[in-house]
Amino acid sequence: MTYSIGVDVGGTKIAAGVVDEKGAIVARTRRDTPSRDVAGIVGAIVAVTRELAADHDVDVVGVGCAGFIDAGRSRVMFAPNLAWRDLPLRDDVGAATGLPVVVENDANAAAWGEFRFGAAEDVDDMVLLTVGTGVGGAVILDGELHRGANGIAGELGHMRLVPDGQYCGCGLRGCVEAYASGTALVRNARAAAQGSAAFPGSPERLLDLAGGDAQAITGPMVTQAAQDGDPLARHLIAELAGWLGAAMGSFVSIFDPGAFVIGGGVADAGELLLEPAQEALWRNITGGTHRPFATVRLATLGNDAGIVGAADLARI
Amino acid sequence: MTYSIGVDVGGTKIAAGVVDEKGAIVARTRRDTPSRDVAGIVGAIVAVTRELAADHDVDVVGVGCAGFIDAGRSRVMFAPNLAWRDLPLRDDVGAATGLPVVVENDANAAAWGEFRFGAAEDVDDMVLLTVGTGVGGAVILDGELHRGANGIAGELGHMRLVPDGQYCGCGLRGCVEAYASGTALVRNARAAAQGSAAFPGSPERLLDLAGGDAQAITGPMVTQAAQDGDPLARHLIAELAGWLGAAMGSFVSIFDPGAFVIGGGVADAGELLLEPAQEALWRNITGGTHRPFATVRLATLGNDAGIVGAADLARI
Amino acid sequence: MTYSIGVDVGGTKIAAGVVDEKGAIVARTRRDTPSRDVAGIVGAIVAVTRELAADHDVDVVGVGCAGFIDAGRSRVMFAPNLAWRDLPLRDDVGAATGLPVVVENDANAAAWGEFRFGAAEDVDDMVLLTVGTGVGGAVILDGELHRGANGIAGELGHMRLVPDGQYCGCGLRGCVEAYASGTALVRNARAAAQGSAAFPGSPERLLDLAGGDAQAITGPMVTQAAQDGDPLARHLIAELAGWLGAAMGSFVSIFDPGAFVIGGGVADAGELLLEPAQEALWRNITGGTHRPFATVRLATLGNDAGIVGAADLARI
Amino acid sequence: MTYSIGVDVGGTKIAAGVVDEKGAIVARTRRDTPSRDVAGIVGAIVAVTRELAADHDVDVVGVGCAGFIDAGRSRVMFAPNLAWRDLPLRDDVGAATGLPVVVENDANAAAWGEFRFGAAEDVDDMVLLTVGTGVGGAVILDGELHRGANGIAGELGHMRLVPDGQYCGCGLRGCVEAYASGTALVRNARAAAQGSAAFPGSPERLLDLAGGDAQAITGPMVTQAAQDGDPLARHLIAELAGWLGAAMGSFVSIFDPGAFVIGGGVADAGELLLEPAQEALWRNITGGTHRPFATVRLATLGNDAGIVGAADLARI
Repeated sequence: MTYSIGVDVGGTKIAAGVVDEKGAIVARTRRDTPSRDVAGIVGAIVAVTRELAADHDVDVVGVGCAGFIDAGRSRVMFAPNLAWRDLPLRDDVGAATGLPVVVENDANAAAWGEFRFGAAEDVDDMVLLTVGTGVGGAVILDGELHRGANGIAGELGHMRLVPDGQYCGCGLRGCVEAYASGTALVRNARAAAQGSAAFPGSPERLLDLAGGDAQAITGPMVTQAAQDGDPLARHLIAELAGWLGAAMGSFVSIFDPGAFVIGGGVADAGELLLEPAQEALWRNITGGTHRPFATVRLATLGNDAGIVGAADLARI
Repeated sequence: MTYSIGVDVGGTKIAAGVVDEKGAIVARTRRDTPSRDVAGIVGAIVAVTRELAADHDVDVVGVGCAGFIDAGRSRVMFAPNLAWRDLPLRDDVGAATGLPVVVENDANAAAWGEFRFGAAEDVDDMVLLTVGTGVGGAVILDGELHRGANGIAGELGHMRLVPDGQYCGCGLRGCVEAYASGTALVRNARAAAQGSAAFPGSPERLLDLAGGDAQAITGPMVTQAAQDGDPLARHLIAELAGWLGAAMGSFVSIFDPGAFVIGGGVADAGELLLEPAQEALWRNITGGTHRPFATVRLATLGNDAGIVGAADLARI
Repeated sequence: MTYSIGVDVGGTKIAAGVVDEKGAIVARTRRDTPSRDVAGIVGAIVAVTRELAADHDVDVVGVGCAGFIDAGRSRVMFAPNLAWRDLPLRDDVGAATGLPVVVENDANAAAWGEFRFGAAEDVDDMVLLTVGTGVGGAVILDGELHRGANGIAGELGHMRLVPDGQYCGCGLRGCVEAYASGTALVRNARAAAQGSAAFPGSPERLLDLAGGDAQAITGPMVTQAAQDGDPLARHLIAELAGWLGAAMGSFVSIFDPGAFVIGGGVADAGELLLEPAQEALWRNITGGTHRPFATVRLATLGNDAGIVGAADLARI
Repeated sequence: MTYSIGVDVGGTKIAAGVVDEKGAIVARTRRDTPSRDVAGIVGAIVAVTRELAADHDVDVVGVGCAGFIDAGRSRVMFAPNLAWRDLPLRDDVGAATGLPVVVENDANAAAWGEFRFGAAEDVDDMVLLTVGTGVGGAVILDGELHRGANGIAGELGHMRLVPDGQYCGCGLRGCVEAYASGTALVRNARAAAQGSAAFPGSPERLLDLAGGDAQAITGPMVTQAAQDGDPLARHLIAELAGWLGAAMGSFVSIFDPGAFVIGGGVADAGELLLEPAQEALWRNITGGTHRPFATVRLATLGNDAGIVGAADLARI
C-alpha cells in the first residue's frame, strides 16, 4: 500500500490527511487559514504536510484550493477569496517539503474523490455541483477530469440561467450561482423575514432561530427549519432546488453524464433538496423523459472529498 | 496512404466520399435521400458505399447522421427528421457491404472534420456550433470527441437561454435553438415584414427579395440583404449573434475551450455573424476579459466537414 | 323605466338585447356573424337593432366590438378579427335605424356591465381581465371607464411579462396574452400530449377527450379534465393562473384597484383558476401583504356582460 | 390672484414656496430635513409654512411627501425613507398653522405641476416617471390625478420587468426600479469599474472622476462622463433608457397616454437618456408604430415641480 497527502485549503481551515490507495484517510491534521496572508498560507500548507510526512511514508502531495489553476497543475493564477495572483504553489511547497506536489482546483479535487471512492464510483461520466457560499462545479468525462484549454473548465455555477438576472459576484448577471447558492438562499430567507411577499409562509420559525434578527439568519438555520417542517424554509430550499434542476437539465444536453453529485453545505438538507431538484430536472429534459439520463445523488464523502480527491489526483 | 469512406446522411441528400489520411476527398458521390423510408435510406447508404468501394481500396466506413447514436457507435436510437427508431445501422450497412462500419452523430462528424483538418487544427479543446435549421453542437476535449454516458452529449442547442422563453421543437421553452437558429432568424424576419415594431429598420429590401410575400422570406434572403447593407437584415443577424455569444459565454465557463467553430447555413453571413457574436461573448465572460478565453472562428470545410469527419472517425 | 339596446359583435355571433335601467335584459335576439364581410356585419347589426326596436321603446343603441375604437366612440379604427379599417359604425347604424348609436370596445362594454350590475358593483376602481382566445382588459377608475388619449387604453394583455419571451399575435414577444390566454393554454396542453417534459403528469385523460389526437385538444377539454381532477390539466390551468397573478401584481402597483374581475372562456374553470391566481397575486405585491389590495373575483354576468354594458354605456 | 403654499418634503431638504394661480413661485424658503425624527419633521413643515404665510395671504397648504397617502389626502400611511407610520399630517400641520392642509404623494404633486404648468400642459392623459434613487410614477387620466382605491396608485416603478430578476428594495424581484433607477445605474457603473465584462468600454474616465475608487462613483459622475462623450457612461445610460422604454411600451398598452414626462436626477442626462428611451419605446409598441402613441418629454420644472404641484393640488 502506498500513501499520498491531500491538503484542502479552505477560507477558514486548512485540512489535510494521509490517504491510502483505496481512499481511506489514515491520519489527519488541520489549522486555521491565516487571513489573506499569502506567505502565511503557504507556510501553513507546508506545516501540515511536514507534520503528516513525519509519521508516514508518502510519495506525493496534492493541494486543492479555490481558484483558477494553470493547465500545468502548478500555479494558482487567481483565487477569489485568498487574494492570490499567479502564485507558484507547487514549487513553493515542493521546495519546502522535498516532496513532489500537484495543485488542483478544490471542486475538481472533491469531484475526483466522489468519483473514485464516493457517490459516483459506478459511472464514467459525472458532474459535481457543490452548493455552498457559491456554486462550484467539476466534470469527469470518460473517467478523466476535464480541465480545459486553460485549466479553468467546469465553472458550472457561472452558466447563465436568467438574462439580465440577479447580480453575481463574478461581475455578470443571472448566473446559476446567483440563484442556487447558499448566499442566494440566505438572501431570500432574510427578505422573507423582512416582509417580502415573494415567499409563501410565515417567517416566524426562522426569526426564532435567529433570535428575532432577520439579518442573523444563516444557511444552517434554513436547513434546520426545513428539517423541522417549516413551510417557508422548505419553500426556500425547493426554490433553490428548482434552479439547480433547471441547470442540470441544460447539463444533460451538454454533457450527457451518468450521474450528478450534489455536495456543499446546502446539500445537508438531503432529500429536501434532492427531491425537488430531481423533479425540476425531469421537467427540463430535451426530448422528454423517455430517453436515458443522469441520476442525481448526494455526495457521500462530505468534507473529506477534497482531501481524498487531492491526494488521489496527485498520484496520476 | 490508406483510405476510408465518409457518408453524410442529410434530410435531402446523402453525400459520400473517399477520404485519405490527410483529410482530402479523392472521390465523391451523392444521392437524394429517399423520403422517410428507412429501408430506402439504408439502401442508398449501401449503394453509395459500394459505388465508392468499387474503385478504391477502403478500410472502413463512417456514417454520420442526425440523431441520438448509441455509445457503441452502432445504432441510431432516435433521428428526429428521419423517422428512425433504434435502427442497427452499423450491422445493416456492414452486412450489405462487407466493410467495417461506424455510426456517428452528424455534428460530431463535422466537428471532428474541422478539428483534424479545418478551422480548429491548432487546438486541443474545441466547441462546434452549427447554426442551420436548428442549432447543433459537438465538443472535443483534450483531443477526444465527447460522446457522453449514453452517446448523446453535445446537444448544445438545447441549453436553456431564457426561462419560460420561446417554444423549441424539443418540447421545452427557451433553448438556444429557439433563439439562435436559422428558423428563429426567418421567423423574426417574417414578423418584421408583417409590421412587428420589435425590429428596427424597414422591411422593404427583404420583401423585395421575397416577391412581396412576407411568408416567402428565407434565411439566404436575410443573409443576402445583410451583405447588401440592409439595416434590418443586419439587425436580425446581429440579434441572433448576440444570443450565440451569450451561449458561448456560458460554454467558456463550462468547457474552457481553445476555440469555438461556427458552421451551418447561417454561418454564410461570415463576419456579419462572427463580429457581433464575438462582441457578445466578450460581454459574457465570467471573471472579466483579462483571463484567457476561446477565439471564435468560422468553419472552413463547409459541407465537406461531415464526410471528412465521419471518414476519419471511422479509423479510430 | 327607460330602455336601451346593447349589441355584442363577436367573431361568430352577433347577440343583442333590450336592457332596462337596472341592467336586466328584457328581450333578446342573435344572428351568425357574416364572415369577414363588412357590409354584411353592419347589415346584421342594423337588423337585430330594428328587430328589437320594433317591440320596445328604446332611446339609444350601444354597440360593442373588438378593436381600437376612436375617442369619439363613433369609428372602428382597427378590428383584428373582422378585417375592419376605419369604419364609421356609429353613423352607418344610426342612419339605418334612426337611433342614436355609441360604439365601444367589447372589453370596455363587458367591464362596464360587471361594474354596474355584476361582480364589481361595490367598488369604484376595477380592472377586468377577459381570458379567452386572447387576453383583453378594461379599466374603470373612480367610477369612469378609462379610454385613453386615443381611445385604446386598457390593452392589459399586452403588458410585457417576459423579455424576449414567447411570440404574441401583436408582433411583440412576451406579452401577458402569450402566456395567460386560452391559446397559450391549448398550446401547452398539446405540447404535453406530444411528450414535452415541461408539464408534469400524464396526458392520458386529455388525449382521451380529444380522441387520441393531441392537435384536437381544446380549451374546454382542459377545463373539463381539470374539473374531473386530472393533475396535468390542473397544472396547466394553475400555470396560466400564475402568470395572471403576476400580471395582477403589477396592476396593483399601477392602478391600486378595488377589485379584479376575471371573465372569458377560461374563467369557466372557476376556483381552479381563481385560487392559484389569487395566490400568485399575493406573492407579487410590492410592500408586502400588509397593505390593502384588490380582491379577485370571477365575472358573474357571463356572455350577457357585453350586451348589458354596451346598452348602459350608451346612456351616458 | 390667490396664493397657496406648496411644501416638498424630501429626504434631505424641506423646500416650500408661495405659488400663484398660474404656477409661479413668488416666495421660497427651505430647511434641512431633521433626520428620521417625526416630531422634528412636522415642526419643520409648520415652520416653513408659518414663515411664508407671515408675508403672504394664502388660502391653503399642499404638502407632498414620499410614501403611501390615504385616499382622504390626510394621513401618511407609510413613508419608506422617513420612518413614518400612519401619521395624521394634515391635522397636525393644520392645527399648528390654522390653515387648511392637503397631503399628497410627492410624485403625484410633481406630476400635477408638470401637467398644469410644465412639460405636459397640452395633453389630458399623462404618465410621469421620476428616475432618481428609485423610480416613481404618477398618472393623470382625462385631466384628473389617479389615486386608486387606497390612495396608492401610480407606483409605476414596481411593475415587474423581469421574472426572477434583480432584487428591488420593495421586497420583490425584477421591478422597473431595479433596472431603471439611479441606484441601478450607479451599481452597474461600479461593477464596470471593478472589471465586469458585462459593460463595453473602458472605465478609465469614471474612475478618474471618482478619484480612482470604484465605490465612489456617483450618478452625477456617470451623467458628466456621458456628456463628455465617454462610451461606457453613454452605454450605461442607454441601457437604463432601454429598460425605461420597454416599461413605457407596456404603459402605452395600459394607459394610452398623450405624453410621458421623465423627471428625476437621472433626467439631467437629457437627450442622452431621452433618445434611446424613445427608440426603445418604438420597439415595444403593440400593433406596430402605425397607430398613434405618446410622445416622450423631459420634465421642465425641475425641483420646483413638487412645490408647484402640491400648492396647486391643494386648491382642488
